[in-house]
Amino acid sequence: MNATNKLKIFNDPIYGFITIPNSLIYDLIQHPYFQRLRRISQMGMTYLVYPGAHHTRFHHALGCLHIMQKAVQTLTFKGVAISDEEENALYIAILLHDIGHGPFSHAMEHSIVEDVHHEQLSLLFMEQLNKDFKGKLSLAIEIFKGEYHRKFMLQLISSQLDMDRMDYLRRDSFYSGVAEGNINSERLIQMMNVQDDYLVIEEKGIYSVEKFLVARRLMYWQAYLHKTSVVAELILTKILKRAKELTHKGITLECSKPLQFFLQNKVELTHFTKEILDTFSYLDDYDVLSAIKTWQFNDDFVLSSLCKMIINRDLLKIRMLEEKPHKDILNPYKEAFMKLHEVSEKDIDYFVFKGKIKNQAYSKESEPIRILKKDKTIEDVVQASDQLNLKALSKPVTKYFICFPKVTLEA
Amino acid sequence: MNATNKLKIFNDPIYGFITIPNSLIYDLIQHPYFQRLRRISQMGMTYLVYPGAHHTRFHHALGCLHIMQKAVQTLTFKGVAISDEEENALYIAILLHDIGHGPFSHAMEHSIVEDVHHEQLSLLFMEQLNKDFKGKLSLAIEIFKGEYHRKFMLQLISSQLDMDRMDYLRRDSFYSGVAEGNINSERLIQMMNVQDDYLVIEEKGIYSVEKFLVARRLMYWQAYLHKTSVVAELILTKILKRAKELTHKGITLECSKPLQFFLQNKVELTHFTKEILDTFSYLDDYDVLSAIKTWQFNDDFVLSSLCKMIINRDLLKIRMLEEKPHKDILNPYKEAFMKLHEVSEKDIDYFVFKGKIKNQAYSKESEPIRILKKDKTIEDVVQASDQLNLKALSKPVTKYFICFPKVTLEA
Amino acid sequence: MNATNKLKIFNDPIYGFITIPNSLIYDLIQHPYFQRLRRISQMGMTYLVYPGAHHTRFHHALGCLHIMQKAVQTLTFKGVAISDEEENALYIAILLHDIGHGPFSHAMEHSIVEDVHHEQLSLLFMEQLNKDFKGKLSLAIEIFKGEYHRKFMLQLISSQLDMDRMDYLRRDSFYSGVAEGNINSERLIQMMNVQDDYLVIEEKGIYSVEKFLVARRLMYWQAYLHKTSVVAELILTKILKRAKELTHKGITLECSKPLQFFLQNKVELTHFTKEILDTFSYLDDYDVLSAIKTWQFNDDFVLSSLCKMIINRDLLKIRMLEEKPHKDILNPYKEAFMKLHEVSEKDIDYFVFKGKIKNQAYSKESEPIRILKKDKTIEDVVQASDQLNLKALSKPVTKYFICFPKVTLEA
Amino acid sequence: MNATNKLKIFNDPIYGFITIPNSLIYDLIQHPYFQRLRRISQMGMTYLVYPGAHHTRFHHALGCLHIMQKAVQTLTFKGVAISDEEENALYIAILLHDIGHGPFSHAMEHSIVEDVHHEQLSLLFMEQLNKDFKGKLSLAIEIFKGEYHRKFMLQLISSQLDMDRMDYLRRDSFYSGVAEGNINSERLIQMMNVQDDYLVIEEKGIYSVEKFLVARRLMYWQAYLHKTSVVAELILTKILKRAKELTHKGITLECSKPLQFFLQNKVELTHFTKEILDTFSYLDDYDVLSAIKTWQFNDDFVLSSLCKMIINRDLLKIRMLEEKPHKDILNPYKEAFMKLHEVSEKDIDYFVFKGKIKNQAYSKESEPIRILKKDKTIEDVVQASDQLNLKALSKPVTKYFICFPKVTLEA
Repeated sequence: MNATNKLKIFNDPIYGFITIPNSLIYDLIQHPYFQRLRRISQMGMTYLVYPGAHHTRFHHALGCLHIMQKAVQTLTFKGVAISDEEENALYIAILLHDIGHGPFSHAMEHSIVEDVHHEQLSLLFMEQLNKDFKGKLSLAIEIFKGEYHRKFMLQLISSQLDMDRMDYLRRDSFYSGVAEGNINSERLIQMMNVQDDYLVIEEKGIYSVEKFLVARRLMYWQAYLHKTSVVAELILTKILKRAKELTHKGITLECSKPLQFFLQNKVELTHFTKEILDTFSYLDDYDVLSAIKTWQFNDDFVLSSLCKMIINRDLLKIRMLEEKPHKDILNPYKEAFMKLHEVSEKDIDYFVFKGKIKNQAYSKESEPIRILKKDKTIEDVVQASDQLNLKALSKPVTKYFICFPKVTLEA
Repeated sequence: MNATNKLKIFNDPIYGFITIPNSLIYDLIQHPYFQRLRRISQMGMTYLVYPGAHHTRFHHALGCLHIMQKAVQTLTFKGVAISDEEENALYIAILLHDIGHGPFSHAMEHSIVEDVHHEQLSLLFMEQLNKDFKGKLSLAIEIFKGEYHRKFMLQLISSQLDMDRMDYLRRDSFYSGVAEGNINSERLIQMMNVQDDYLVIEEKGIYSVEKFLVARRLMYWQAYLHKTSVVAELILTKILKRAKELTHKGITLECSKPLQFFLQNKVELTHFTKEILDTFSYLDDYDVLSAIKTWQFNDDFVLSSLCKMIINRDLLKIRMLEEKPHKDILNPYKEAFMKLHEVSEKDIDYFVFKGKIKNQAYSKESEPIRILKKDKTIEDVVQASDQLNLKALSKPVTKYFICFPKVTLEA
Repeated sequence: MNATNKLKIFNDPIYGFITIPNSLIYDLIQHPYFQRLRRISQMGMTYLVYPGAHHTRFHHALGCLHIMQKAVQTLTFKGVAISDEEENALYIAILLHDIGHGPFSHAMEHSIVEDVHHEQLSLLFMEQLNKDFKGKLSLAIEIFKGEYHRKFMLQLISSQLDMDRMDYLRRDSFYSGVAEGNINSERLIQMMNVQDDYLVIEEKGIYSVEKFLVARRLMYWQAYLHKTSVVAELILTKILKRAKELTHKGITLECSKPLQFFLQNKVELTHFTKEILDTFSYLDDYDVLSAIKTWQFNDDFVLSSLCKMIINRDLLKIRMLEEKPHKDILNPYKEAFMKLHEVSEKDIDYFVFKGKIKNQAYSKESEPIRILKKDKTIEDVVQASDQLNLKALSKPVTKYFICFPKVTLEA
Repeated sequence: MNATNKLKIFNDPIYGFITIPNSLIYDLIQHPYFQRLRRISQMGMTYLVYPGAHHTRFHHALGCLHIMQKAVQTLTFKGVAISDEEENALYIAILLHDIGHGPFSHAMEHSIVEDVHHEQLSLLFMEQLNKDFKGKLSLAIEIFKGEYHRKFMLQLISSQLDMDRMDYLRRDSFYSGVAEGNINSERLIQMMNVQDDYLVIEEKGIYSVEKFLVARRLMYWQAYLHKTSVVAELILTKILKRAKELTHKGITLECSKPLQFFLQNKVELTHFTKEILDTFSYLDDYDVLSAIKTWQFNDDFVLSSLCKMIINRDLLKIRMLEEKPHKDILNPYKEAFMKLHEVSEKDIDYFVFKGKIKNQAYSKESEPIRILKKDKTIEDVVQASDQLNLKALSKPVTKYFICFPKVTLEA
């Protein structure tokens, strides 16, 4: 395939067309590490609530690439100097920023490889790709690690108003049909500028920033932390936990080899050789869901029950609570279920449990969203917004919940 | 035309189709009082900022009718008893709620007929129509006046979350292209219910209410109170003021007869005979804009200058101020302009002036937006929203501005 | 206003943002000749059928400018050399291509200035502007007149697949809500190229061209030639005809001075001095509709009756016929109306008349739409489309109609 | 769960909300046979071309249910008598019409269960469900089999303008971003009626029917039969073929038990016991894609090569031909590939092969789309459309292609 053929264009229902800017980017997209993202859903199990939400990490990464191109155009137009090399590095960094995600994205983040954040895995993938592509990713990695001297570039990739968030809010809203989550990424980008090496939003864009924060919060409570998503993803993690437990007891569970590897071995960040990274790269939603389909017929009551819940969307009940529940709240549910099924005291926690979810729409601890006032001074959006109480938005909200089988007290 | 032909359908880019439920409604729409709304723009002069914003009161009223039908469907589905007569009254009341608007809607509300609110005029029109239609509008009028015993019906027509606001926010956002103003009216309606004769939103719809309030506030600052709209509409009122002034001096200004009538006569609410109401009904955007086109060639410097500003979109400058300006702030602008043009001390106020605009996204003094909690209690959204500081939203915001000709100090 | 302020952006619900590429374009937009287009509706009287169709020539011209920018980008990207001067000329030419339209666009094209096509008037405006802007429009005019040696440039501005059609189909579809008229202008532009100095569409875009032609045909029958639009616009022309007739009899009709000028004088193309051009430029929808509002109370029965029809949307009936009607078909309608009203034999033609409408979705006589095959040969889309019978699309369709007052035979 | 909770609503980005009309429908949706459709993609491998096209049969079936509700509303409004039992049967029949689809929908239709059409399987599922639901599906089955006396009901479910096509065209267009495939299902339904027991479209809807047919044809060539989809799906079928071949040689391939069952057994329609039906119901995209992921490391060169192509989207090349290719056309490709790899004469057909694709936008042999003229006569759309040559649309188009590995002559 020659260079011209590589000037590829992707159709996107959101932006119309996504253009691939050059052949290096094209080759990265073609790499099996990246193609794998076609098999990792962006919103985990949320499709059990919103049946349209089957879009992938692959599509999201292309979307990020697209709006990064728009951002570079806007900033250049406003006189911010960005060299060709920097431009390309920005494209690479945003394209690959989430490449380390495993099956079902966040839903299983700490179930397969414990205690390793997906960003650390993204970095491992980038470094491996940098070897394959003979150092052409070095500047992208430098920016991604926050080591490049022009700090605003990192903010384009990872901050409270980065290309990542702009694409995923809009995309998740589009595919799920939660229309209120839609944001005007085009306008936000149009209002971007760089001042004192900070990424800033010009003052007249402040309402759009507020709208963005409200939309993000809404998406959290209405989609990402929707109680049905939450319970489905908790069941997913319990399945993995049970599978590891059984594996460690010496029981071999039918599943793909890469998944088996991670059931058998507790892998830490420092263990990651090229081989383990490759094994991880073979994992995607299909390994996990196929295993669950098989395991629904497993002899282990706990494992098979949990798996059937996912496959038939016949989940545990979840009840949200405003207050932290009393420590004994679960007892009656446990007793009721144990009367019906032979479940040990220890295993009952797979069916009856409690927890909490937390969200913070805006973090005052992280890099702020900076507003560029007309007098060229910079203000945190929390100060600049005269009206919407962003201080309130930055207060973390915690919600408590309990989960239990339908066939118990409340049946 | 027989009854069947009256089952008319309107195309609407927002809702797809708007169905006219019965022939009485159809006949009201056909009435000249209502057809006149085709010639009154919904957003006044805002099209000088957003060139797509040319939609009319006519279209908005049909849109309100449409979502009222959805609301009645939803409430009925949820078991709220609504009789056929009540249903029809709701349709009539929402269809006609704004029929009293004059040219350019709010922009000229107090310039043509002083001290009379458009809702009072709407009521006059309804009462006249009630005579023509032999009392068929009586229940609609009762609801509109807040005299009907089922209070939630008024809330559907006029409250902080009524069909009016739901349609205009969405429609104004659609036609202007201010995408952030879009709201999910369908979802809000889906969440409606009636409890203790109050219109309520079920608890799970609270994020949509928040989004609605934020969108409304955004539309205020980004569209309705956009500084260019503000200055254009102020020039409009100054033109009318000048025209009345000249008329009272005995100068006859070329314009349509109905407009001339209101230039010559100071009409109060109690004066409104059927004849005056009819004269008012002949007035629309076309009378005013045609007059302005003619007057741009008038001998009076003040009048012609102001008119040219509108016609050629060559407006006064407007500068927004955070603080109330010093009383002398205008002096240098006045002096500079008077040096260039022969304008009297008195008339300079037509060109150089100050003022303030005010907006309150949510009023705690009005009927609250009520949230129906899962335990069937009702809470004001201000209390129910745990996060978004609606208390802040309910604080009125005042902004100050000064206006002055371009060809002065800052030219 | 300095150069930076001129980098203006318009909101557009269709394309998001429309950017003004340079200050010359900005100054042209600011010119009263162009600002006037804000007061000329794009779709004439079609808003009587589709109440959302109030968008203007102003907005359409900006839309054309926007997609011309996209076309230049695409062609440049594909290696077509376009100099800065040519680029700018293309922007000017497309921006001003319709500046010669009078009130209600096509609806009154031959009523105000007889026998002069709007494109001829556009050229007069451009030439006048070229004087004002010291020759900066010369290349644009050369292209517009078809005198520039690079012929594809004219095709971008005026051909069967030009920027004009691409914008108006999409825009008219958007504002009217006739969703089927929507076309994928973005994709069509993406498929454009230049071969042998012809504007061509690459072969893989052929389905989009077919869709475009079908959409255009649909818009003709469903919107532009919708029977209600047709009858409304015919009434409009009859009003003007009657007004001229009365004027020539010495009766002075109340209306704006510019309109009066054209009622009194039969202006031909060669008569157009700068002064007459300016007078024409003062005319817009507001002059005509205001006159009609006034004339509805005129003593002349014909004039007042026709005017009332427009104002109250109480139009003549129109019946479509497949065949050319018999010459006597109108007689019974005429007789019936004359029994009810004192109308002379001569004047009855204002109320009872027949006619035909014609449309051709694709003209084989004009410049064809050229398809670029993979082997770099060019084929007319009529040949290249294997399936859709474009030959049929290129056959002109004629439909006949008769119009008559409701209060006659069929009442 | 009580009845009230079953009044469930699904979010849909296309229609807004999809309401489940009653608890029987709800229970059918909850059934594992139906939940399984969540794991079967609507467009097979098309996501390799359009990365957004990951929507499922589940979502499509809900969409069909939604527009069937609209159709029933419209027909009832127009006076067509539809009893509650019939209404419910229509909902059931449309909901389940595609329940017999296997993995990747059409892409593998004849690879897993040979010679059995998915509609036959849908019927088997419905009959099984009818047993489980105690005969409540009997009328739906009668309609589905074409045995019910009111024939228009079958046409709503299966005809050239049924709810199925209306939903899938719009949905596939939406998710893939092929905007031209979008159709105005709302308008088409609004134009529906029943005459002489035929489903008809009223004459004024004829342009929408034409647009529908053109959109459908476009979707075929641009999406369903896009050459990349075609080659991907052919590779898929070759993988299954190879897997069966190896299995029959006694080699055990790692995969899920249900898939293994169908690799080992040639199942015919008459074989389908409840047990085999259940086994089939356990199959979905996940079984197939997981197997392919595993098999990419299989020792068999043919199998592993084909599997890698799918996983890494590194497909065979496909070249479209207008004419039927010469029988020897493949020879040089075969020779070149056999020089590079040890592939037997027999196995080379897995890599180098030819074929054809066929589409007919409108079939004159099937039930026509009927237009209801104003005089109440019925005409086939082919006759009724005066312009668009639907005769041409009804001519089947055949396109030929050859496939071969990249690393051969054209590499």
